Amino acid sequence: MSKKIEVCLTPALIDLYDIEQSIVVVIDILRATSSITFGIENGAEAIIPVSLVEECLAYQEKGYLLAAERNGEVVEGYDFGNSPFSYTKEKVAGKTIVLTTTNGTKALHLANKRAYQVVIGSFLNLDSLSDYLASQDKNVLLLCAGWKDQFNLEDTLFAGAVVNKLRKNFEHFDDSSVAAEDLYMLAKDDLRKYLHKSSHSHRLAQLNIEEDVVFCLQLNVCKAIPVLEGERLVKLNPKP
Amino acid sequence: MSKKIEVCLTPALIDLYDIEQSIVVVIDILRATSSITFGIENGAEAIIPVSLVEECLAYQEKGYLLAAERNGEVVEGYDFGNSPFSYTKEKVAGKTIVLTTTNGTKALHLANKRAYQVVIGSFLNLDSLSDYLASQDKNVLLLCAGWKDQFNLEDTLFAGAVVNKLRKNFEHFDDSSVAAEDLYMLAKDDLRKYLHKSSHSHRLAQLNIEEDVVFCLQLNVCKAIPVLEGERLVKLNPKP
Repeated sequence: MSKKIEVCLTPALIDLYDIEQSIVVVIDILRATSSITFGIENGAEAIIPVSLVEECLAYQEKGYLLAAERNGEVVEGYDFGNSPFSYTKEKVAGKTIVLTTTNGTKALHLANKRAYQVVIGSFLNLDSLSDYLASQDKNVLLLCAGWKDQFNLEDTLFAGAVVNKLRKNFEHFDDSSVAAEDLYMLAKDDLRKYLHKSSHSHRLAQLNIEEDVVFCLQLNVCKAIPVLEGERLVKLNPKP
Repeated sequence: MSKKIEVCLTPALIDLYDIEQSIVVVIDILRATSSITFGIENGAEAIIPVSLVEECLAYQEKGYLLAAERNGEVVEGYDFGNSPFSYTKEKVAGKTIVLTTTNGTKALHLANKRAYQVVIGSFLNLDSLSDYLASQDKNVLLLCAGWKDQFNLEDTLFAGAVVNKLRKNFEHFDDSSVAAEDLYMLAKDDLRKYLHKSSHSHRLAQLNIEEDVVFCLQLNVCKAIPVLEGERLVKLNPKP
């Protein structure tokens, strides 16, 4: 099969893509998909993404941990928010976490309706994710969660990193793949410095999450690939 | 006033932008907005963009020239299509042309509903357009027509060229402005070579319009800035 890789720059554009036979990689670098990757790596049994803070509450009586963030801040009364530092072994091993975020959850649900498979990408699992995508006989759509349906730099840079890894394994690349890869090549020697150019970065600076940002830009500190099974994100077990 | 410049990467995203007080620059480099710029420069009295080929026909009895293109080819029975070489002085001076294109017309109509002003951008009028935008006390939205609502490289590169020209005249830049400018800086020494990486370029190569592409990538061969007045694109007369 001649394989195609495409980059959907915001969830608002997903209806333009034919994904019934594609693996969709959901990307929300700051910080949902980085935290999900880290949580699954650290032994969380499952992470359940939900759209509304109120939906989270319905899971409380089941003994699940509740994580909720709106506009980058922990929602009052929840166990934790969206910082990857909340997803350590000590806190999440063996647990199920219910997570709602501003942009990432929305992208996940949109992809889940139609895709062959939905997996989670972040700089933390770049190599293991790329190896998996290279090994499958499927097209790939890299879905950037963006910021309130707008383009953002950090998700696009990660999409570009995956395109760059997969250049030899795929034959067809759309224009947004070309752009994302070139931006990643410009930025890769110092991702943090590059993101200082971003409007999103300014917003994040105000929220005082610089440590989170630095953490989320680390390459390959995880092997786990979270995959959506029904409504739950669990650890993918690639066939040998 | 602290001025903002934003890039809307496809018409499908325009509802995310507050443009009531903005000048919107519609960009469809290959080839609608290049041809429009060239036609107005060469003395066309007006160019009327319409969405449907059938709408064009209604104007025939008024003695207007009819230009129609679908999927990059001239529609049978029309005076000409979308090639800038159709818009020479000899052919268009003093005439009104009714034009329908795949992507550009759609972007124009979407912008026209809400914007303070809608103007036309192309590499052909880069400097005069940028000077005009710098001189106005308005925010700017650079609206890429894209390809069937998807991102394309050539429109984004031009948006990046404008951002680069206006860097000192504006204070706020969104993430897509940053990305577009960086891509333009990568590509600017040989725009044609860079576009060979594009899927759109492959499609255009099949249509045998290489001469058009080379023409549309020329910088500053025109001074005219087409502006939408009602339903008609006419030559802007900037106040001295």
